[in-house]
Amino acid sequence: MRIMKTGLSAAVCAALLATSVTASAVEPEDAIHYRQSALGVMGWHFGPIADMAKGDIEYDGDEFARRAQNVANLASMPWEGFVDGSYEDGGHGVDTDALAKIADNPDDFEQKQQDLIDESQKLATVAKDKDFQSSRAQLSKVGKTCKNCHDDYRAE
Amino acid sequence: MRIMKTGLSAAVCAALLATSVTASAVEPEDAIHYRQSALGVMGWHFGPIADMAKGDIEYDGDEFARRAQNVANLASMPWEGFVDGSYEDGGHGVDTDALAKIADNPDDFEQKQQDLIDESQKLATVAKDKDFQSSRAQLSKVGKTCKNCHDDYRAE
Repeated sequence: MRIMKTGLSAAVCAALLATSVTASAVEPEDAIHYRQSALGVMGWHFGPIADMAKGDIEYDGDEFARRAQNVANLASMPWEGFVDGSYEDGGHGVDTDALAKIADNPDDFEQKQQDLIDESQKLATVAKDKDFQSSRAQLSKVGKTCKNCHDDYRAE
Repeated sequence: MRIMKTGLSAAVCAALLATSVTASAVEPEDAIHYRQSALGVMGWHFGPIADMAKGDIEYDGDEFARRAQNVANLASMPWEGFVDGSYEDGGHGVDTDALAKIADNPDDFEQKQQDLIDESQKLATVAKDKDFQSSRAQLSKVGKTCKNCHDDYRAE
């Protein structure tokens, strides 16, 4: 960990800086770990609201809205972890299901990211009304954006 | 993975549901993985803006604001991963630096979470003005909330 300049040194946050990276120096293994973490955190919040939608657990409007907002807040984050050299069989030695064809289809991959971002923002808005049926319907649209991307760019 | 009911089945999102949990059934290892992921994602975004504050990389007002907003959006998320039975030496077999004394000081731990949430929200707001000095000063306050919590509740 580098020493921060006067005035910020007291603010040094070891755990955070331990994963410090700059855009110009992203190692494939760090990028993979980052994106898997971001998608995993999204899954942590998506899971219970999907369970509510399925009827596996009781619908809780406040909890659904809170987790939907978290999914929306996370939806823009994973993508900067999909960098050159970080895909499946990329020689980095890290397990990843991200197919190398992502690099060949940047516009389509970006559109699929945007679909998730847009639909999850709508979900966060809809969920605030705490109506089960409309929340459930919009959750389905979010899930479809996940599936659309996985179908094309994720190893089976 | 369970089968979703009609209408949502097409929306099944394997990667997300793979980490699906409910509040009533959180395993310590899942909670640890979740909170470490959430804190790691926060670190990914905090790192470059700390580097800008230190002068190690060039200040970019748009990039600083974007990452500061991500930190603010993440600040409320890690804490639900700090559950009973998930602390250091808790018998779960997972490496974690989270001290067991967290469980004995819930009010103080919660206040320290709130300090991060509040200061990072302020940072996201301040950063929008794209003024380096004020952004740097508020980043220092965010970093202090990290340190305050780590000093008490994180293994050295």
